Amino acid sequence: MSKFKVAIIMGSQSDWPVMRNATTLLEEFGIPFEAMVVSAHRTPKRLCEFAESAEGKYDVIIAGAGGAAHLPGMAAAMTCVPVIGVPVQSKALKGMDSLLSIVQMPKGVAVATQAIGEAGAFNAGLLASQLLAMHDEELKSKVKAWRQKQTESVAWEVE
Amino acid sequence: MSKFKVAIIMGSQSDWPVMRNATTLLEEFGIPFEAMVVSAHRTPKRLCEFAESAEGKYDVIIAGAGGAAHLPGMAAAMTCVPVIGVPVQSKALKGMDSLLSIVQMPKGVAVATQAIGEAGAFNAGLLASQLLAMHDEELKSKVKAWRQKQTESVAWEVE
Amino acid sequence: MSKFKVAIIMGSQSDWPVMRNATTLLEEFGIPFEAMVVSAHRTPKRLCEFAESAEGKYDVIIAGAGGAAHLPGMAAAMTCVPVIGVPVQSKALKGMDSLLSIVQMPKGVAVATQAIGEAGAFNAGLLASQLLAMHDEELKSKVKAWRQKQTESVAWEVE
Amino acid sequence: MSKFKVAIIMGSQSDWPVMRNATTLLEEFGIPFEAMVVSAHRTPKRLCEFAESAEGKYDVIIAGAGGAAHLPGMAAAMTCVPVIGVPVQSKALKGMDSLLSIVQMPKGVAVATQAIGEAGAFNAGLLASQLLAMHDEELKSKVKAWRQKQTESVAWEVE
Amino acid sequence: MSKFKVAIIMGSQSDWPVMRNATTLLEEFGIPFEAMVVSAHRTPKRLCEFAESAEGKYDVIIAGAGGAAHLPGMAAAMTCVPVIGVPVQSKALKGMDSLLSIVQMPKGVAVATQAIGEAGAFNAGLLASQLLAMHDEELKSKVKAWRQKQTESVAWEVE
Amino acid sequence: MSKFKVAIIMGSQSDWPVMRNATTLLEEFGIPFEAMVVSAHRTPKRLCEFAESAEGKYDVIIAGAGGAAHLPGMAAAMTCVPVIGVPVQSKALKGMDSLLSIVQMPKGVAVATQAIGEAGAFNAGLLASQLLAMHDEELKSKVKAWRQKQTESVAWEVE
Amino acid sequence: MSKFKVAIIMGSQSDWPVMRNATTLLEEFGIPFEAMVVSAHRTPKRLCEFAESAEGKYDVIIAGAGGAAHLPGMAAAMTCVPVIGVPVQSKALKGMDSLLSIVQMPKGVAVATQAIGEAGAFNAGLLASQLLAMHDEELKSKVKAWRQKQTESVAWEVE
Amino acid sequence: MSKFKVAIIMGSQSDWPVMRNATTLLEEFGIPFEAMVVSAHRTPKRLCEFAESAEGKYDVIIAGAGGAAHLPGMAAAMTCVPVIGVPVQSKALKGMDSLLSIVQMPKGVAVATQAIGEAGAFNAGLLASQLLAMHDEELKSKVKAWRQKQTESVAWEVE
Repeated sequence: MSKFKVAIIMGSQSDWPVMRNATTLLEEFGIPFEAMVVSAHRTPKRLCEFAESAEGKYDVIIAGAGGAAHLPGMAAAMTCVPVIGVPVQSKALKGMDSLLSIVQMPKGVAVATQAIGEAGAFNAGLLASQLLAMHDEELKSKVKAWRQKQTESVAWEVE
Repeated sequence: MSKFKVAIIMGSQSDWPVMRNATTLLEEFGIPFEAMVVSAHRTPKRLCEFAESAEGKYDVIIAGAGGAAHLPGMAAAMTCVPVIGVPVQSKALKGMDSLLSIVQMPKGVAVATQAIGEAGAFNAGLLASQLLAMHDEELKSKVKAWRQKQTESVAWEVE
Repeated sequence: MSKFKVAIIMGSQSDWPVMRNATTLLEEFGIPFEAMVVSAHRTPKRLCEFAESAEGKYDVIIAGAGGAAHLPGMAAAMTCVPVIGVPVQSKALKGMDSLLSIVQMPKGVAVATQAIGEAGAFNAGLLASQLLAMHDEELKSKVKAWRQKQTESVAWEVE
Repeated sequence: MSKFKVAIIMGSQSDWPVMRNATTLLEEFGIPFEAMVVSAHRTPKRLCEFAESAEGKYDVIIAGAGGAAHLPGMAAAMTCVPVIGVPVQSKALKGMDSLLSIVQMPKGVAVATQAIGEAGAFNAGLLASQLLAMHDEELKSKVKAWRQKQTESVAWEVE
Repeated sequence: MSKFKVAIIMGSQSDWPVMRNATTLLEEFGIPFEAMVVSAHRTPKRLCEFAESAEGKYDVIIAGAGGAAHLPGMAAAMTCVPVIGVPVQSKALKGMDSLLSIVQMPKGVAVATQAIGEAGAFNAGLLASQLLAMHDEELKSKVKAWRQKQTESVAWEVE
Repeated sequence: MSKFKVAIIMGSQSDWPVMRNATTLLEEFGIPFEAMVVSAHRTPKRLCEFAESAEGKYDVIIAGAGGAAHLPGMAAAMTCVPVIGVPVQSKALKGMDSLLSIVQMPKGVAVATQAIGEAGAFNAGLLASQLLAMHDEELKSKVKAWRQKQTESVAWEVE
Repeated sequence: MSKFKVAIIMGSQSDWPVMRNATTLLEEFGIPFEAMVVSAHRTPKRLCEFAESAEGKYDVIIAGAGGAAHLPGMAAAMTCVPVIGVPVQSKALKGMDSLLSIVQMPKGVAVATQAIGEAGAFNAGLLASQLLAMHDEELKSKVKAWRQKQTESVAWEVE
Repeated sequence: MSKFKVAIIMGSQSDWPVMRNATTLLEEFGIPFEAMVVSAHRTPKRLCEFAESAEGKYDVIIAGAGGAAHLPGMAAAMTCVPVIGVPVQSKALKGMDSLLSIVQMPKGVAVATQAIGEAGAFNAGLLASQLLAMHDEELKSKVKAWRQKQTESVAWEVE
């Protein structure tokens, strides 16, 4: 079956240089994904349509946004598919606004929030892989091998 | 004509003790309003329905929410009716999360953000009145009279 | 009648590169406006004169300032014309000081605060247009058309 | 098979009044879980042992801690089982330290961070349920039903 | 001559419990002062009148306010009499908003900002005394004696 | 008599590009001053000697420092000469640490704190001039004339 | 020999309820110490005298203070005896000011900063013990035994 | 005997440009040290091995990390050797996350936290030297001489 397992959505095309870090491990592990711009504020209907059809199409959603970052929380509000949120660094407040807008969700709707910026986007791809690996032994082996390789790649030397 | 001029929406019934301050001046000025719970996260469809039918029913929307406060921004995203946002004080971060989630809107969708908490809710009612007064001379007189009365009520004495 | 509908005031000439973003939509919608430097701190009398004569001249005031940003709140204190506040990004504290100085108004005087920096200035022009459109069907159509066009301009593709 | 699906670990017994909120939905959905104190700082060996044996025993780990909250990140560093982090509100800094210590993970190890305090703990239980439901249609139905019930329980009335 | 040497102004009667701490040393040193409510936002004309007549009447102005605290900066903008600013602790943001609104003055208008709350108000009275003592040897002796007495009153013992 | 009226001290030679802004108005008004490096941390004895001999030599002290900025407060602790504090912008925390270290003085020792960075340094020179002008009519005229000139120099035009 | 190994100094008697937590382990390990009030701001000469005679009398100094907390850094500036700093929680800013005033020391003078409040004071006593244990095998055994006991005292059960 | 007295560990090779500042004084004082990469998150087993063998090999540990900086606290949790923590400046939050993650340790495990960035790393080397000097008169003389030289190197002139 060819469905996309992961959707990567972001509030603006300008978030892509950060959010593309979420694709690194998905590509390495051969996980099919789809990346697209869905703006909570500029395209709210697209968000509704995306979220309503998400269940049949994706197992995990990665959503990145900056400033008053409503996309991850609103996507999570509209579907039961797990949503991983990535706070994109904003210009003035350096992503503190993005982080608080994403992580401080009220009781009843959850977002799996990652770190601000590129590390967070990369880890969103990693976490999505871990979630998919919960019931996919082959993928689980890949994730563990990657983690092991990462550990081994850390040299003792400082320079 | 009997339509409500102002809608006051809030993310949770627990926001009402703060948000009811928005009604003080609306009542004093005889401006019809409707207050209701519309949760961006728990009732996203209600939010869509509310926003889509807002234009014919309201001239101004006052929206209050706390924490990852998406209600004002999402309402503003779904209608061209002006939205006044009130950050409700949150428990841990004292409303700083509410404020940043509401005010840091991206280019293209605007929210008229007020102060955190009761003063902000009160001023939301005041600002709504000022907006309605832009083309209502009688209301404009009332607002100016109230402002004048407020000024006069400030005693010089400190105790 | 040829009166200016919107006044754009700012605390310093150096705020203009940010504040000129407030003019984009006013120009697009054909709304007459006037932009000028009015410093609360360096020209307090000019501020008083501006505010006292504002009512006959403007329907909306957009006020931008940075740091201890008193201009929006003081303008709002001196007139019943609605004031939209724009926190200009400051050097050291990145506009957090500007934002709190503008948004944390006490009960009784309201400012419609926007986001820090250029997005906030742009949205000030948008909000001003929305306010003027409350009683101007032609302008309302323009605003809605622009919002629709904005929505349509958001491509699905990330690159 | 009787294994526990979810482990709830916390840095101190004093975190339990917050962290027990993570059990609400697990109990409602009939998901077996185990809650225990594992302190990254006071019992680092227990943490190692817990993490090393986690894979065979748990599908999801929920980890809560306050202040310099290292438990979620260290657990995530030692296992590929997905870790959901809950920042417990601290006395002086109100959980801002807990939040940043948990969410700002470096590239290569991911934590699914929730909101500060009780809402975050509750949502950790919800998110764990959503993750387990990815391959459990019966649980998925339960989660969706609960979300639906939550939506319906939001009254329109403000009081 | 009987003129008041120090004016203590505050934005609201509710600031008096904090601002009365500014009178402690003025009374101890026998410095005549006048305390009154002057709200930048609710009584802007009173502020103008106060500031315009300040030069003939006061040598030092102490101004306290909370939230978007514009009073000290606006008073300083309207007179060359030195202004000492006291940030009153606000409810949500604990006076951080008050502090930044007072201290982050732009180039060209200065406020002598004190600490948030009661200590700051007390020190405003102390600093006013130090300023008046610059050309009053008797007062200088009193200030030095008080400082010396304060030093001596600090016991070595911790309990 | 030729004594220096104002001492400008700073924690490090690297503060001079900021602190030299304090000399602009002192030079314009012909106020004799002395600028020197006095580090609270690296030269604590120099600080003691400076402070102990300050009373006979200076009427006002301007002290600038960054990070854990102890110089203004410690100078104020050691003399009754009024101390104006300037928070120099620090690298990581942008001067927020400098500001809080200077302004949050305990009851009993006062510092007249200015804004972070160059504007604060400039205003320190302005405030020092205002203090010296309290009993110097000629200087008072100069200060007022400069303020007036500043007001007149603010053009209405935005570009 | 009977000299005190550790000095515990604090800026005010009101810091003692927090700072007495520093004595818990010193007493448990039988380490002689002396606790006293030394205010950097109110008793600067006492601080100089304390610091100048510290080397012959103490091996470690624990210094606690709140707000603009200059005591730890100034003590460290005046002696080569290691100084452990404890930020006491302040009223308005909850110890963030205390923390930054203590930890952000410039290059050349070091303070071993602990957490805000009681935990930090307790750990100051622990760290002092660890430092003294560097060359005291008996004390080292006591510290290790206490740490082991602490580890064992952490029950697995959450309630 | 040739054992290393100080271990300098850091979470990533990219921390070395900051952390190498910790070596300046160790080299100047002829204190043998070893610098290596030990990542709490990517190499948790290496951290355990390092910490378990630290006691026989090092007298002091200097640990630097950025973001969710768990290395210093986890090292301190696993050994009784004193740990000096250095918060490395992070990209988005400028090291505030690093600082809080390191300094806000719970009761029972202490880290001697330094300033954010290069000054903190330099001071970590200084503090390590001071600790080793507690029982090494020759080193104590070197430290004092260096401090004295530092004091003398501070010129009075500002340029």
